Order: sequence, then structure tokens, then C-alpha cells
Amino acid sequence: MTLNILFAATEARWPQYEAPLHRALEAEGITDYRLATEMPAEEVDYIVYAPNSDLQDFTPYTRTKAVLNLWAGVEGIVGNRTLTQPLCRMVDSGLKEGMVEWVTGQVLRHHLGIDEVLARQSGEWRPSVPPLARNRPVGVLGLGELGAACAGALAALNFPVAGWSRTEKHIPGITCHHGAEGLKTVLAGSQIVVLLLPLTGATENILDADALSRLPEGAVIVNPGRGALIEDEALLAGLDAGHLGHATLDVFRQEPLPADHPFWRHPKITVSPHVASETRPETAAEVVARNIRRGEAGEPFLHLVDRGAGY
Amino acid sequence: MTLNILFAATEARWPQYEAPLHRALEAEGITDYRLATEMPAEEVDYIVYAPNSDLQDFTPYTRTKAVLNLWAGVEGIVGNRTLTQPLCRMVDSGLKEGMVEWVTGQVLRHHLGIDEVLARQSGEWRPSVPPLARNRPVGVLGLGELGAACAGALAALNFPVAGWSRTEKHIPGITCHHGAEGLKTVLAGSQIVVLLLPLTGATENILDADALSRLPEGAVIVNPGRGALIEDEALLAGLDAGHLGHATLDVFRQEPLPADHPFWRHPKITVSPHVASETRPETAAEVVARNIRRGEAGEPFLHLVDRGAGY
Repeated sequence: MTLNILFAATEARWPQYEAPLHRALEAEGITDYRLATEMPAEEVDYIVYAPNSDLQDFTPYTRTKAVLNLWAGVEGIVGNRTLTQPLCRMVDSGLKEGMVEWVTGQVLRHHLGIDEVLARQSGEWRPSVPPLARNRPVGVLGLGELGAACAGALAALNFPVAGWSRTEKHIPGITCHHGAEGLKTVLAGSQIVVLLLPLTGATENILDADALSRLPEGAVIVNPGRGALIEDEALLAGLDAGHLGHATLDVFRQEPLPADHPFWRHPKITVSPHVASETRPETAAEVVARNIRRGEAGEPFLHLVDRGAGY
Repeated sequence: MTLNILFAATEARWPQYEAPLHRALEAEGITDYRLATEMPAEEVDYIVYAPNSDLQDFTPYTRTKAVLNLWAGVEGIVGNRTLTQPLCRMVDSGLKEGMVEWVTGQVLRHHLGIDEVLARQSGEWRPSVPPLARNRPVGVLGLGELGAACAGALAALNFPVAGWSRTEKHIPGITCHHGAEGLKTVLAGSQIVVLLLPLTGATENILDADALSRLPEGAVIVNPGRGALIEDEALLAGLDAGHLGHATLDVFRQEPLPADHPFWRHPKITVSPHVASETRPETAAEVVARNIRRGEAGEPFLHLVDRGAGY
């Protein structure tokens, strides 16, 4: 029987994904299928989905076997009460590689003091050798696919890495902490802290005034995770009081970040326009096709979202 | 018999090295020794040396068994005709770690376009996702201790790395080339090229106008090696003509770089004040002490300089 696959994302995505999805489905041995951006709801077997799509009411999709998200973050859909079908997150190797490169680059930028060198290009020879990475403790909040990969890359460069996650984890080479007390320990010991937590009720504003005050003097925050993990006002206060050294932010409560937002032009904030990483059509299509093949074979879906935990 | 060890470097170094050297010598089991900044030349067994020291005539050091350099580069001493004693280079684990961190940070800075993000902090949301490292070929010229370590760190981040050295080498994960034809191959394929060659008669001006013209359009040069590896005028011409994208230079023919030098203020040159890495007293003292112990035990010296090759 022909498999009906609905592509529900913004219009700009379709030309990027159409060919890669066909290639990936065929590579998985799926040949009798229809892939389109429109079809009767009651005929749809799988939905390839982006949370900013027009499709927000899943009620009429009565025979849909799974919603396959193109984004790593699912906070824009997991609370949708009409969604009763299984939901899978995107875990894309291209997205993970890009994230590791961005996080490693930003941590090294702060570690090496590259901004200071760039600001001193008018004839001032002022050598200042940074400490070795082995003497620069880094914290990574969130030890999922992305957080664990970034923590591993930083540890490979000799940074002493402490990680934190909601539930207990064990990762070779990383000092892992969990729970409320564990968070305090990681914050107190991190000169640079990287945020790669999912956004849930439990993680929203996790870096509030109290948490920020636990970071050591001059600490740097790198946030490629989700904007709402940090309480904006508390961050500004911590930077302005001189307690925090810098914040490099790639994600924001509102995107694009409005041109009059105080984060722009703040001397201690670097605004990065949500480029830390993105899902790559070629590799993401492979993950989607693999999950459709698994669903048809009666195998469990990969990267299934735990609706209770929210990710 | 008491071993006489002369410390011959600039005055500022003695307080940094005195205690680490005592600790390291004792850790090697050397107890009957004298370590000082002055002693009669004919009594000196070992010279711990920096090429910018006042000691330039080695003729009276008739019983000296080795000159143990504190610097990785020996071009400032290898041509000294009064030096007939064995000369050892510094291979310091701290220096190597620092170099790997600096090179990786600078390559990622250029790869990710961090400068462009920093320059766009006034409200312009212009997302531009860089390619993945696996699609960004990097070349490393020089595959000694430092070059090989940097090449390995870059390959671990998925950059396709091609290396070049005078003599044939084999390094797992790195495509190794050598000789004149090999250099052309590496240059033609490298979007970012890192210079970590020793400075010798054969490598001086190795990046001349011809070599620079072989780099692909928009290529970036990162030089933490030696200033004289690049022909300054050819570099400026290549940047000004638009063929080369950028040069990040940590080393110069004259240091400090004179305030009126055209490299300062050039929009496509980043001047870094020789901070890519430096010898660290703790780890360097261990290398010096190990070589003294080996010399006394009749074992071959580590990191002995090949006077013919010049490094």
C-alpha cells in the first residue's frame, strides 16, 4: 500500500528537503510512497514536521504513525494537546558536528582572549599569554547528544570539563553532576559555562540571578541552547555589576532579536544570529527515512520524545 | 663531583626558572650540583640557554657537555660558529599544548567567521551558517612536534588535513606530502594554511609570491611559526589584490612589530603579539633536568639539533 508522507514546514524548506528525502527514502528501500506538502489529513502515514509550520492541529491526522521533527528542539510542539501521535526529535550528525565546531570555537575564543587581540590592532604590542586549557575549567549544562559531544571535544583539548544533567549520567573523561546540588557545584567551578539544555518547565530561567551569582568572578557564558534558559534581566545585571565577564548568545526569547534589544551593542554581550548549528537536509533526511523504515518494520522509533520529561 | 650548571638567559627568566629547575633536578636524582647565572666558563658542565642571552661566545666553555636551549626555535644560535658543543632544542609539553590551543582557536575563528559576527553587533540579524569542518580543507606546513600535534587536533575536529614536511612522514589521519611538488599540492588544496616550519635557509620566504598564488581564492594564512617564513611584500600584495582572504600572524621578522609597520591596521591582517605559545618553566625545567641526567648516565641527549639541517 502506498505510504503517504506529508512535509509540513515553512515554504522555504521544501526545495531544500525534497530531493534529499527522495534519495534517503529510496536508500532505505522505501519505494511505494507519496511525498508532498499537501494531502488529505486522514490519509497521512507520517508527518515530516517543523514546529513553525502552519500545521498546529493534529486531531484530523487519525492514521498518522509518527510526527518526525526536523528540529532538535521540540519545545514548540511538545505541549500541543492535539498531538497524540508519537513524536521524534531530530538527531542529525551534521547538526552535531556543526555544534561541536561552534562551541569549541567560542570556548577557545574566550580562553585565548581573541577579542582583546582583535581590539588591539593599532600598533600596541602587549603580549599576554593565556593559561593552558588544562587550567581553565569549563562547565557544560546538558549532556544529551549535543552536550556530550561538545564536552568530549573540549576535554580532548585538555579543558577540565564538568557536566550537568537532570538525571545521573556517566561519560568517560567528563566529571558528571546532576540534580540541584550538582548544578551549584558545576556553576561554582566553571570559568566558562556552555548551555545545551532542552527548554522545559524545569530548565526555563535555570540561569537566574541566584545561579549566575554562583559562577566565579569573570565567568563567561556561551549559550547555543535556548534563549529562555537564561533570565535576561539577571544576565544584564550580572554583566553590568562586573561579576560576569562576557556572554556569547546564539539563541534568544525572540528571533530575530529586535534591533532595539539591549543585548545588541552591549560591550560584554556577543549576539550571534542563531547560527551555532542547523539541521542539514542531507543528513536529516536520512534520519527521517530511517525512522519511517523502522516504523513500517514494526521496530521502535529512534529519538522518541518522552512527553512527560518534555524532550 | 659537583655538576656546574650555568643559567644563561635574560635576567627576567632567572626568578621564573630557578625554583622549577631545582625541583626538576632533584626529581631526576641529581643532588650534587651548583646552579647559577655566573660561574667561570671553564668549569661549566651544562648551559641552560636562551638565544637572546649575553652569552654568544662559547669558545671558553671547554668542558661543557651540552647547551640546553629553552626555546623551540634554534635559528638564533645554530649558526654560531663558536658553538661546537651538542645543542638540544626545547620540546616542552606546555608549549605544545598552548600551540595546539592557539592554532585550533584561530582556525575555528576563521572557519566560523567569528570576526564577521563580532563586527555586526549593532542590530543587524544576518544569519550565515558556515560549512562543516569536514568540507573545509586545512594545510599544515611543518610536521615536527608542534605541527603534527596541531594537525592531529584539527583532524579530530573533522577538518580534512594535508600536511607538508621537508622529508617524507606518515601520520595517521593526515594526508602527508613532502618535497617541492608536495608543497604545491598542499597549497592548492588548503582554504586555511598553518605555518609551523622551523626557520632555515630552505624555509626562509617559503611563502613567496609564487607559493601564495597557488593558494585558492580567499585562503587564510595562520602563522605561529616564524616571521621570515613569509615574504612580507608578497603577502601584502596578495591580500590587497583580493586573492588572499586574511592573515593572522603571531611572529614577525622584527619583534615587537614596529608601530608604523603596514601589518598593523591592515584590515586583512591580524597582528598577534607572539603569544601563540611559550615555554612554561615547570615543564621546560623537567626537559632540561632529564637531559642532564641522560648526559651524566651516558645516554643520548633528547631533541639533539641536527646542525646540518639547522633544527
